[in-house]
Amino acid sequence: MSPEFQLIEAFVHAAAASPRAPRGPGDDAAVLPRQRGASCVTVDAVVDGVHFRRASSRLEDVGHKALAVNLSDLAAMGARPRWALVGLGVPRGFRLGDARRLGVGFGALARATGTALVGGNVTRARELSLTVTVGGEVASRRALLRSGARPGDRVWVSGTLGDARLGLSLLERSGGHEARRLRRFPRLSHGVIERQRNPVPRIELGQALVGLASACIDLSDGLAQDAGHLAAASKVALDLDGGALPTSAALVTAYPEARARARAAATGGEDYELLFTVSATREAAVRRLGRRLRLELTAIGAVRRGSGVHLRGAGTAPVRGFDHLA
Amino acid sequence: MSPEFQLIEAFVHAAAASPRAPRGPGDDAAVLPRQRGASCVTVDAVVDGVHFRRASSRLEDVGHKALAVNLSDLAAMGARPRWALVGLGVPRGFRLGDARRLGVGFGALARATGTALVGGNVTRARELSLTVTVGGEVASRRALLRSGARPGDRVWVSGTLGDARLGLSLLERSGGHEARRLRRFPRLSHGVIERQRNPVPRIELGQALVGLASACIDLSDGLAQDAGHLAAASKVALDLDGGALPTSAALVTAYPEARARARAAATGGEDYELLFTVSATREAAVRRLGRRLRLELTAIGAVRRGSGVHLRGAGTAPVRGFDHLA
Repeated sequence: MSPEFQLIEAFVHAAAASPRAPRGPGDDAAVLPRQRGASCVTVDAVVDGVHFRRASSRLEDVGHKALAVNLSDLAAMGARPRWALVGLGVPRGFRLGDARRLGVGFGALARATGTALVGGNVTRARELSLTVTVGGEVASRRALLRSGARPGDRVWVSGTLGDARLGLSLLERSGGHEARRLRRFPRLSHGVIERQRNPVPRIELGQALVGLASACIDLSDGLAQDAGHLAAASKVALDLDGGALPTSAALVTAYPEARARARAAATGGEDYELLFTVSATREAAVRRLGRRLRLELTAIGAVRRGSGVHLRGAGTAPVRGFDHLA
Repeated sequence: MSPEFQLIEAFVHAAAASPRAPRGPGDDAAVLPRQRGASCVTVDAVVDGVHFRRASSRLEDVGHKALAVNLSDLAAMGARPRWALVGLGVPRGFRLGDARRLGVGFGALARATGTALVGGNVTRARELSLTVTVGGEVASRRALLRSGARPGDRVWVSGTLGDARLGLSLLERSGGHEARRLRRFPRLSHGVIERQRNPVPRIELGQALVGLASACIDLSDGLAQDAGHLAAASKVALDLDGGALPTSAALVTAYPEARARARAAATGGEDYELLFTVSATREAAVRRLGRRLRLELTAIGAVRRGSGVHLRGAGTAPVRGFDHLA
């Protein structure tokens, strides 16, 4: 048996308790169960040295994150996860045990979310990468899109912003004053590092927003940048209030000054929260949903005619999002 | 606009005349058209230094091949191609013009095969890679599998074997006597290099085999190795006749000796032909199909009880397939 087959078998076996398609890994392609609703598909990759560093990462977390970032895209469409395919790029010296650890992290999230691992592929490469494709189903046949925001709608966001970026500074020991301030609080430091390593895709929220939200996007590159995509797709302007951005105790500790904190929240990256717009008349429904899901949902601004993202209360310098390639 | 968006836009734009899904590139996920038949999905990657070398490749060919190897997997399931997602890994110094050239090659094959490019993702990486996911539809709801071969069936293969591997030797200047013999014949040399660079997935053949073949697999790792997968999945033995393996004029020129030629045909790799089994009573139907598709279909052996692949007339040393990781 070639190393290629052994590696993918080790990965699939470790992730194996995830639900299976009728014909899964092992044939030339997977045959999927039939679906009633509309199908959504998306692909995203995590690469060593770009999205994580092996030296500061557990491979279980890498497996989790590779799936989580994709499920976050399905969440933004209001889709229920159904299946996943994994393309592994592995460097020399990558071991069966390493493939198993990736599979353990991937499989735990796959099981928790009902995602069937239906196939995969391994190739040699200079650095470790996981390219994950996921498919989901929208029950109502109408997916959430980025393009539905209308003037007068309110802008909402889930959870808290900026934590994952702060966690990355701690992991990389690259932060300035703010990281030094936070390091004195081990529980808060651990929390933001976990946000970085183990993002939680907002799958239930996304499904619940179908029929309620007018537009939705997930936050992977930072609020400022991703809000810009939603504004452009909807051909509207978004007025956001920097003082209203939801932040954790860790962010308040690291950034005691309000404008600096708002900038950190707006540009963080890798939040994997959902940004969405809802008619102003349906505020009560959004608040009920937050209580039902036990998830903080915060109104952070409004949609108006125009273009671009206008963030008040975050200083005057241009605010750009997080860009892996920058 | 970040380099990431510019690169994926350049790729998608160059490939853009391919048919589009109702909601394609640009939202968090693509929403697919509804299908009647069973859906098949598969993923495969091509990586610089493993599956091609930039120094000896045109990027148009790399874009073609990345899609072709996936469509070959769909062909082996009897599926009609429907959609594709592309994950690009790009090294520093990769230009917009490079992304466009990849897209041109990808798009030409996508158009020719009715494959809609519905989304993509770019990430930085140390070497160029394309991880392509494709989805297809089986009209009859019954996909071709590797597991249906029965004792008494005949074993068939499409096209000719071993050419792509020979083309690789010429490109890499790594071949021995056989490459030197072939280099004297420019037309034959060009032909095997094209087989290496521009494989033609057997999509029409695969669809026509639904209801006729009992099992099917595509040949990516060499006949010997892939026949082994089909035998294992079907829990049967395959007796193959080395003297019956279909070979081109180029292979005959490079390997004048019959046993050496049979070994080259059995172990070549990257043929992207289909190996399939059919009841012995339906030989006439296979021959009619070959004439209709103007494609050489050759009976190369038989299925019997037992296990493994038994290749007569190719010498006594163990015959192994081509393994990218070896």
